Amino acid sequence: MQKVVGIIGGMGPLATVDLINKIIFYTPAKKDQDHIHIIVDNYSQIPDRTTAILGKGTDPAPFIIQSAQRLENAGADFLVIACNTAHFYFNLIENSVSIPVLNMPLETARFLHEKNFSRVGLLATDGTINTKLYQHSCQVYDINVIEPDLQVQKEVMEGIYAIKGSDLEKGLLYLSRVANTLINRGAEAIIAGCTEIPLVLKSSQDICVIDPTEILAKTVIKTAIGKVSASAIGVK
Amino acid sequence: MQKVVGIIGGMGPLATVDLINKIIFYTPAKKDQDHIHIIVDNYSQIPDRTTAILGKGTDPAPFIIQSAQRLENAGADFLVIACNTAHFYFNLIENSVSIPVLNMPLETARFLHEKNFSRVGLLATDGTINTKLYQHSCQVYDINVIEPDLQVQKEVMEGIYAIKGSDLEKGLLYLSRVANTLINRGAEAIIAGCTEIPLVLKSSQDICVIDPTEILAKTVIKTAIGKVSASAIGVK
Repeated sequence: MQKVVGIIGGMGPLATVDLINKIIFYTPAKKDQDHIHIIVDNYSQIPDRTTAILGKGTDPAPFIIQSAQRLENAGADFLVIACNTAHFYFNLIENSVSIPVLNMPLETARFLHEKNFSRVGLLATDGTINTKLYQHSCQVYDINVIEPDLQVQKEVMEGIYAIKGSDLEKGLLYLSRVANTLINRGAEAIIAGCTEIPLVLKSSQDICVIDPTEILAKTVIKTAIGKVSASAIGVK
Repeated sequence: MQKVVGIIGGMGPLATVDLINKIIFYTPAKKDQDHIHIIVDNYSQIPDRTTAILGKGTDPAPFIIQSAQRLENAGADFLVIACNTAHFYFNLIENSVSIPVLNMPLETARFLHEKNFSRVGLLATDGTINTKLYQHSCQVYDINVIEPDLQVQKEVMEGIYAIKGSDLEKGLLYLSRVANTLINRGAEAIIAGCTEIPLVLKSSQDICVIDPTEILAKTVIKTAIGKVSASAIGVK
């Protein structure tokens, strides 16, 4: 029996669409009915996560919990959160529902471990960096995480908010520049640790980009129907 | 106060994503919180609409009604159906909930009327053609609808199911061929009357493509927040 996935989304909306697209793309399907039943709560009104974590804004936790419970009540069998920074509230969210919640940073760290990475760069919001979501997940597998210097991190934030404001070109400019500095500091790959980043930054000859959204999408499919499409096997 | 939109989706999943994308694109937003609260039920398991209408498959109505009620219970203030053919069940759906449901073919006909079209070609599934959804909506405004001949209609269905199976190239080949025959028969524009069609068929110098998904997206935004973004004004 197929499982129904609930997506806590809207942080931002484009990142939510990116996750849905990747789930559809990697699902082995020849017709509508082969696809996964996904209930999406694109709840854009959830207050900004980074602002709150830095102590300057409304607490988004009650909003995220409301979304999780809305999805559980609507019939979701398990949940995912389409936002890295929001994983800061992971335990609160997990405790607010009686269904499992997949953990994107932890799934990413497991993937990096399976692919034998030992030193990776991290592009993420101040919120994700400061709360050490990826550092802690990677520590589980003895993977070293290189962060941008404080000054350079400002460019990352500028790039991410440019994407949220639909200026993809500016976003790519800022983020690829920072990615290169991390590669020069010895990173074997770059974690695109904010769901907006893979919208513009892709793997190239010079940079291997690890996309947590893609890893999460494949985990969703495995959880819902037990297999991913042939084209997805061995990707990255 | 912003209204929450519920999308009855999954017919097919890519068409649902297309509608979400268009809502996001045309929403005047500078940050996540400016976007619309969308609850999406991507319920791909809804049985094939065309097969059922032609008397050969499981009745999808109870599934669609289940989806409508799931969205109402989850907090949607109004509903849309991200599938043209499913509008055959419009009255049943409308009667199953206590919130308004927007009608895509009717919104499209109103748009055509406002733009002074009087003779349009229709690309749609056998189900949508046979149930005369667009013909009846256009009749309200005295707009003439040209349908493909029976033999040519087979190519339309082949094109649509190619898109559902992710073969976009084959879809475009079949659909643009048929679109041209309708233009030659005097159509001033082509209604892309199945949500899969605008995924591949776009307006060009030779063909003006009317995209009901785009029209629906703009109606959703106007209903939810009362205005669309400047870039959306006067499009098409």
